[in-house]
Amino acid sequence: MNRRELIALIRQRKSFLCVGLDPDPDRLPAGQDVGSFCRAIVDATRDHCVAYKPNLAFFEQMGSQGWSVLRDLVQYIGRTHLVIADAKRGDIGNTSAAYASACFDWLGCDAVTVSPYMGGDSVRPFLAAPGKWTIVLALTSNPGAEDFELLEVGGESLYVHVVRKALSWGTPDNLMFVVGATRPEQLRHVRSIAPDHFFLVPGIGAQGGSLEEVIHAGCNSDVGILVNASRSILYASDGPDFAKAAAAEAHRLQQEMAVFC
Amino acid sequence: MNRRELIALIRQRKSFLCVGLDPDPDRLPAGQDVGSFCRAIVDATRDHCVAYKPNLAFFEQMGSQGWSVLRDLVQYIGRTHLVIADAKRGDIGNTSAAYASACFDWLGCDAVTVSPYMGGDSVRPFLAAPGKWTIVLALTSNPGAEDFELLEVGGESLYVHVVRKALSWGTPDNLMFVVGATRPEQLRHVRSIAPDHFFLVPGIGAQGGSLEEVIHAGCNSDVGILVNASRSILYASDGPDFAKAAAAEAHRLQQEMAVFC
Repeated sequence: MNRRELIALIRQRKSFLCVGLDPDPDRLPAGQDVGSFCRAIVDATRDHCVAYKPNLAFFEQMGSQGWSVLRDLVQYIGRTHLVIADAKRGDIGNTSAAYASACFDWLGCDAVTVSPYMGGDSVRPFLAAPGKWTIVLALTSNPGAEDFELLEVGGESLYVHVVRKALSWGTPDNLMFVVGATRPEQLRHVRSIAPDHFFLVPGIGAQGGSLEEVIHAGCNSDVGILVNASRSILYASDGPDFAKAAAAEAHRLQQEMAVFC
Repeated sequence: MNRRELIALIRQRKSFLCVGLDPDPDRLPAGQDVGSFCRAIVDATRDHCVAYKPNLAFFEQMGSQGWSVLRDLVQYIGRTHLVIADAKRGDIGNTSAAYASACFDWLGCDAVTVSPYMGGDSVRPFLAAPGKWTIVLALTSNPGAEDFELLEVGGESLYVHVVRKALSWGTPDNLMFVVGATRPEQLRHVRSIAPDHFFLVPGIGAQGGSLEEVIHAGCNSDVGILVNASRSILYASDGPDFAKAAAAEAHRLQQEMAVFC
């Protein structure tokens, strides 16, 4: 799914919601396995979102079977949504190329999240995949962001250096940034540096970020953000009505987004 | 394998060699698949090394089957060597815990490499695994290390901040650092900050680092380093004698190491 198609999808569905698929085995409703749970969530939320973001860790902890479940899930979602492999990979050149192949070719995802720590030659092999998206971690929404991402480097935070540097590696057509919702003023700052790039914004809901603040700080004329919600949708209810509750929460978020699309 | 056992193994085998298992499908000798190639390399190098470091990317690009091949390989290596999952993972708390479970419980590895970008709450869940090792990226051996790892932050490079911070998260019994061989003076600096921790040192051989310089810059009284070689061993020959050539190269490195053990 290219940039033009993604923007059209956002306008059409009046949503820039990304549903994070983090199937924690300890929180699955009774009678559900990882595959059936994720399919039920997808069925319940399909009309309200434009992207899904399966978190590879929760599939990998099931080993080889988990990888098969994930591939089946990506196929189940289909070409109607952007599918982001939340993998946070990153290694030297030929290794990153192999990770890109795993996420794009074997799993069939449209996008992958990448850690920038090792620098340009660890990110560029992902960007080289035609028709795919690389989403570089800039400022994450966890408390640990204070440890390094927010360190001051020559008058600016490290995450700002990451954004500036990454802008020379990719374009608004193949590069996005992760910018957390818990710090709207920083989101605004990244928008000023990267006016045209899409941002993947985690941290609303369970992590405390405000959707309204995110919209005001992060949107551009193409909308330009994908707002992720995971736990607040997946675990909206832990009873047999979990899918209905997930649909309601996704719909609620979509309604808040609609006026900005 | 705990620290005492690792040091005893190094003394006994007179080696601190780690063989990196990066089975690039484009470089496999004729008639070999990823599994048979890696087993042949392990058979050929077992007596000359104390650790193996399978690179997850090259297994993951084969999807679910690759994960099965990797688990079989970890079992094939057995408890005679430290097995490091070169995974470079790192995400928020419960996700890192799932990655740790994938590497330690499902694959059965002893150690995992972790990217520090997202900070303490992304690394600590790995360190919480009893009897396992977390190996934090500090200074890598690729050109991209210049982009962020070597940025100056308050008079010191970012990788030095990473080391100092990580020292508060783990101990010499569960925490190691990746410090590249291509910059011996920096290796010496990290040793001065972390006198007791083991370092995993990539970058000799194909990447140009000198083993002798690494030894002089990085060793402590417990030896304290694991020196990784991947391509120079795996692809010492691309003919039917590949295993014999790998054994010879591993033996050559072990002989250079023996006097320091």
